[in-house]
Amino acid sequence: MALIGILGGMGPLATVDFMERVIALTSSAGASRDQQHLELLVAHLPHIPDRSEAMLGNGESPLPALLRGIDMLNRNEVELIVIPCNSAHYWYDAMRTHSRAPIIHIAEASVAAVPEGVSRVAVLATGGTFRSGLYQRMLVARGLESVDPDAATQEHIDACIREVKAGRIGISAEHLAAALDWLLAHGAQAIVWGCTELPLAAREMDVPAIPVIDSTLELARATVSYGLARGWNSPR
Amino acid sequence: MALIGILGGMGPLATVDFMERVIALTSSAGASRDQQHLELLVAHLPHIPDRSEAMLGNGESPLPALLRGIDMLNRNEVELIVIPCNSAHYWYDAMRTHSRAPIIHIAEASVAAVPEGVSRVAVLATGGTFRSGLYQRMLVARGLESVDPDAATQEHIDACIREVKAGRIGISAEHLAAALDWLLAHGAQAIVWGCTELPLAAREMDVPAIPVIDSTLELARATVSYGLARGWNSPR
Repeated sequence: MALIGILGGMGPLATVDFMERVIALTSSAGASRDQQHLELLVAHLPHIPDRSEAMLGNGESPLPALLRGIDMLNRNEVELIVIPCNSAHYWYDAMRTHSRAPIIHIAEASVAAVPEGVSRVAVLATGGTFRSGLYQRMLVARGLESVDPDAATQEHIDACIREVKAGRIGISAEHLAAALDWLLAHGAQAIVWGCTELPLAAREMDVPAIPVIDSTLELARATVSYGLARGWNSPR
Repeated sequence: MALIGILGGMGPLATVDFMERVIALTSSAGASRDQQHLELLVAHLPHIPDRSEAMLGNGESPLPALLRGIDMLNRNEVELIVIPCNSAHYWYDAMRTHSRAPIIHIAEASVAAVPEGVSRVAVLATGGTFRSGLYQRMLVARGLESVDPDAATQEHIDACIREVKAGRIGISAEHLAAALDWLLAHGAQAIVWGCTELPLAAREMDVPAIPVIDSTLELARATVSYGLARGWNSPR
């Protein structure tokens, strides 16, 4: 049994959404019975301190709790770890060094999915992730320009994320629409949902007809590709 | 950190649906931030042999694999175990005896939710669960009568479950509607989704205006009540 470890609960609905994408992608690849799916161990740990607040210097570091989650997954002999939370990847290097199992980087998978021909990309993410420069550095490395939100737009993005975490998807979509309006008016040619709460809000609105890169989906694609390439969908 | 263990993947979408209900019920109880949710460890093990086939004498027993899952959860010190798969509860006594952590019984939670005033109940479940008499015994113990499907109706129920497991929800709902027509025509005054795939099919159809007991929801309610009563939604 090859287990894929998911360090999740950041937030809860985003983890469920991620699992649903993994299952749907595995079905699309031909699974029609339970026994043809990938085996997962999900450490769903919503008590991990808020990542964005910590990056902004307002709260306890989540790193000890993140490492406890990584340890739990490794103790159970997972062969791969994925973390459906962009902000947690601020601590990627520390987790990667600490982990026996490899960890797929959600932002790497997402930036790699920006299509050719696009030059100006808006990444919507938590205030902490934005301030950390996590995505901007990766965009620059690919020769792409980041369309950065102004303070009011970032407030809409943070409010959207907060409302999804509270289970209020309707209101969250209104904040997301406001943020998108500003980013498109400022030249974004593609957008990245750089926080795994955002695709949940986006389901409830009309998304503009430009390329949309969904970090939850890109992480799920990378996870399923990794597992299927190794035959992990078949009982051993 | 108090962890609730979920032995899941039976099937994959049913486990995701169960987690979503747990999260929604916790939100309804007041959680508005990640840190106010319950911590879960989900052993999502779809390679466990088919439960219904084994009960019908057509396949390998899932019991060794179920016990490995129970062991994995106990090794990680979960304080409660839930299994969002009705058919797996055919082996409940063996799992319960084997487990340090208590296990909530999905069929007990579901039968307890049949409202007063109803006397004839149709439980829709896998062919194996039906043949095992798991639900019928519990209904009788509550003084309720079971409306049993004929062979053609049971075939529709099994086909519905199979299509959900294959991710083909549209077709699954057609089979479910056919089964319901027969059961209502034969006197059912309430129905129980006695298989955790069925609520996923039911979302895509008009459900009759009689009491519907959803085993996924009842297990989620019992789980959330158990956890919130013990304060497991707060970081320790």
